[in-house]
Amino acid sequence: MNTLQEYLYSKIPLAQAMQLQVLQAGPEGVVLRAPLAPNINHIGTAFGGSESALAILAAWSVLYERLKAAGTSATIIIQRNSIQYQHPADAEFTASAYLIEPDDWQRFMRMLQRHGRARINISSAIDCEGVCAARFEGDFIATGVSPIV
Amino acid sequence: MNTLQEYLYSKIPLAQAMQLQVLQAGPEGVVLRAPLAPNINHIGTAFGGSESALAILAAWSVLYERLKAAGTSATIIIQRNSIQYQHPADAEFTASAYLIEPDDWQRFMRMLQRHGRARINISSAIDCEGVCAARFEGDFIATGVSPIV
Repeated sequence: MNTLQEYLYSKIPLAQAMQLQVLQAGPEGVVLRAPLAPNINHIGTAFGGSESALAILAAWSVLYERLKAAGTSATIIIQRNSIQYQHPADAEFTASAYLIEPDDWQRFMRMLQRHGRARINISSAIDCEGVCAARFEGDFIATGVSPIV
Repeated sequence: MNTLQEYLYSKIPLAQAMQLQVLQAGPEGVVLRAPLAPNINHIGTAFGGSESALAILAAWSVLYERLKAAGTSATIIIQRNSIQYQHPADAEFTASAYLIEPDDWQRFMRMLQRHGRARINISSAIDCEGVCAARFEGDFIATGVSPIV
């Protein structure tokens, strides 16, 4: 089991209840997968709350991985998000989050280092069998930056 | 255990994983409660994905209850939502959803009966120990209306 999955399982019980699996994790992007059965709804497709939760975790994780790759650690919380459910997901689904315009990242890191607090917008896409099931975007706040020692 | 809780537990496994409890359920409003432990995050407060999921279920449920009270049944799905996380929830939290401007409800029912499909916006509030932790609003679509026989 990889490091990000261990971290999420140890800190966020819902990640375990959803049977989340980390397929890819690095500063370039994070891809998380969830099977349908523990995330199903009343009509046999993925529950919107599960899609939201997986999208939040993918977006949160890419920021976590990117900060780690930059040699820093910070507390990351979500401030707001929106999500459009475009197609029902009737099989296992993934959430993919890819950072970030280089300009946005540089602005974010500069704010974080100067003021100890910065905000950034991150998108996730929920896909199921090659079709985009939902589109998510959220604002995340990092605080209390410190070097990883 | 009340009817709505039985329904949610039987249809949506995540509701059970979150240990959701129905505190109030009727056409005037739905209040759902979740304990912190199964919904905790990496900093010891409620996971945003759990707050989103509980808010979605409260909003969905008030529409379900309202349709039931009107003597009809329909398939209700979520189309989009947004949520603002205003304060961390560091204890059990509730999601409360109260319908709906009477004009909105009449327009929604008219559309549903005429066209077999209608959309309505519903809000939920997440509260923790008397403080508003998050504000949610989402668009829900009802289709395939039929009388309850």
